Amino acid sequence: MSTPFPYAERRAKLRAALKKAKLPGLLVSHDPNVRYLTGFTGDSTQLLITPKLAVMISDSRFETQLRDECPDVEAEIRTAKTTQADFLAQVLTARHITQLAIEGDVVNVASFEKYKEKATGTEFVVTSGLVDQLRMIKDKHEIAALRRAIDIAQRGFQAVQGLFTPEMTEREIAHELEHLMRRHGALKAAFEPIIGVGPQAALPHYRAGAIRLADAPFVLMDWGAVEPEGYHSDLTRVLATSKIPPKLEKLYRVVFEAQAAALALMRPGALAKDVDAAARNVIAKSGYERYFGHGLGHGIGLEIHEQPRLSPLSNDVLQPGMVITVEPGIYLPDFGGIRLEDDVLITRDGHEVLTSTPLEMGPARLG
Amino acid sequence: MSTPFPYAERRAKLRAALKKAKLPGLLVSHDPNVRYLTGFTGDSTQLLITPKLAVMISDSRFETQLRDECPDVEAEIRTAKTTQADFLAQVLTARHITQLAIEGDVVNVASFEKYKEKATGTEFVVTSGLVDQLRMIKDKHEIAALRRAIDIAQRGFQAVQGLFTPEMTEREIAHELEHLMRRHGALKAAFEPIIGVGPQAALPHYRAGAIRLADAPFVLMDWGAVEPEGYHSDLTRVLATSKIPPKLEKLYRVVFEAQAAALALMRPGALAKDVDAAARNVIAKSGYERYFGHGLGHGIGLEIHEQPRLSPLSNDVLQPGMVITVEPGIYLPDFGGIRLEDDVLITRDGHEVLTSTPLEMGPARLG
Repeated sequence: MSTPFPYAERRAKLRAALKKAKLPGLLVSHDPNVRYLTGFTGDSTQLLITPKLAVMISDSRFETQLRDECPDVEAEIRTAKTTQADFLAQVLTARHITQLAIEGDVVNVASFEKYKEKATGTEFVVTSGLVDQLRMIKDKHEIAALRRAIDIAQRGFQAVQGLFTPEMTEREIAHELEHLMRRHGALKAAFEPIIGVGPQAALPHYRAGAIRLADAPFVLMDWGAVEPEGYHSDLTRVLATSKIPPKLEKLYRVVFEAQAAALALMRPGALAKDVDAAARNVIAKSGYERYFGHGLGHGIGLEIHEQPRLSPLSNDVLQPGMVITVEPGIYLPDFGGIRLEDDVLITRDGHEVLTSTPLEMGPARLG
Repeated sequence: MSTPFPYAERRAKLRAALKKAKLPGLLVSHDPNVRYLTGFTGDSTQLLITPKLAVMISDSRFETQLRDECPDVEAEIRTAKTTQADFLAQVLTARHITQLAIEGDVVNVASFEKYKEKATGTEFVVTSGLVDQLRMIKDKHEIAALRRAIDIAQRGFQAVQGLFTPEMTEREIAHELEHLMRRHGALKAAFEPIIGVGPQAALPHYRAGAIRLADAPFVLMDWGAVEPEGYHSDLTRVLATSKIPPKLEKLYRVVFEAQAAALALMRPGALAKDVDAAARNVIAKSGYERYFGHGLGHGIGLEIHEQPRLSPLSNDVLQPGMVITVEPGIYLPDFGGIRLEDDVLITRDGHEVLTSTPLEMGPARLG
């Protein structure tokens, strides 16, 4: 982040959202939400935020790190001799917190039972998505970070193709790709790269196994990088490694057109479910609807999957500053799958495709 | 796993545990628990288990993978047009499930609210730790997998020292270490390696930054590997890279003695909190109790942190087949920290330290 302290501003926005929702305060429990609001990169730490307070509730492992990373926020530190729920109750009592919202999509049922049992002076309200709504719209520093994450991923993808040999396995490609992205400045891969040769590419969430590049005429690669500020990129390409089978070429064209149809709708005010439908209709018209079972896309940022969602069930409306994957796919069991995935920024008057790796299929040279 | 199907046997054990707890069935929602009971390595998939049924509730991304990885378990597959809660309700209705336990420490409050709202014909019961209790005791195949994970981690640690130069940064060490562990057969690192040079070592959950080996006389490394079956190792060592400061040597001796005191108690029947106290007392007697804020150790297996826990608050009793880290530490802000971590198997009549990397501090040669 080039601005030193975007965090106080973000907390002010959250306080405004809490006020609007008539909520007295929020116990932020999701690690990426805590990071977004304070800059803290550790875990096991909650942020108690009210109109007047911002207090990190953590344990002694993180004491120094909290002081270094978020000096502008108070911290309450427990030792190994107090449970998390007991300590939370102590803090809420000491701070006179009589009503508090929790993140219902983060806190598990058992923890919530303990909070209610221990913090008898506090009435809890279950909420969802308050911080996610803020995180959905990226500021210019976040967009710059996402561009870096994409640049690193694309450089790694380019570089790993230079290592291709007929004997190289999916797993070796995944490992070399991650290593190369790190050399280009990644903290790590955004997720375990999905490298699927031939029929394996029909498994949308396959990871990477022992199949060799020479074992089929194409390979699907779904990968991304985390840049130093924690922002994630997410891309998918299919590379031909020998003569492209006609059936594959047909699938590829359908998926390509599905993506183009979705992109054509992407601008502020568009409904996420309409964008999904545009791609899904192209695939349905070609007779493959049954083989596209997942949503069209998702937001990226401090997490690899965040708001908004492009799906038939989404109620999201596109807004400037959203950065979203667009990833239609067709997966034919035992034959293989095609997915194309790009990362798209919603701008004031349309969109910008942030990814620039060519969409054509290759062929990649095998050694 | 050398046994082809340990999964049916594990499900039988879970059914016995459910019967004993007078529970009619369980919705297993935690990915590692689903994997433990079925062999499925994907995510976003629940296992519905009753005395007569074992059904995976998943989505179309995982259809082929489910057929390949767990052919002996039924699967119900939803598409992107149905929400998870709606689909769960449909399955529970079709299968006449009138009462069902959930994993309260896994399912979040918002999801649980939706389950109750949609599945009106099912009464839900909140439980905790049923599968964790089974996973706590490793069978011989799991112990063999953990030995492999430790072996890979130790080989990587040995190899990365061959790359040390005065200019090498913490982050470079972390990246090279992960790459080397993969070359030795790791799927990935068990977690982002913690590499802390000098004062950074005082942050128990620091990751790895831009500090160079030459910037301080020692480096703390906390790392592990995931072997191909998904089992995790977890070790910590401190290496001197030049003349050892007397203060560091003193801390080192205290931590070493704390670990030895804990190990001396580790056998079946010992209380986890007594083992923790043995180490904590050694550190307290040296005046550093304030600087050891975390628990003494945790189980390892399909996750990096699992049951049992060695801590002042633990109610666990050691049993044969448990594999537990023993990791006392002292962290002096702005000076540095010492932690020593080994992985220990509880045997029928005592324990076996599975890790064999020497405990002495080096010095490691810098280039």
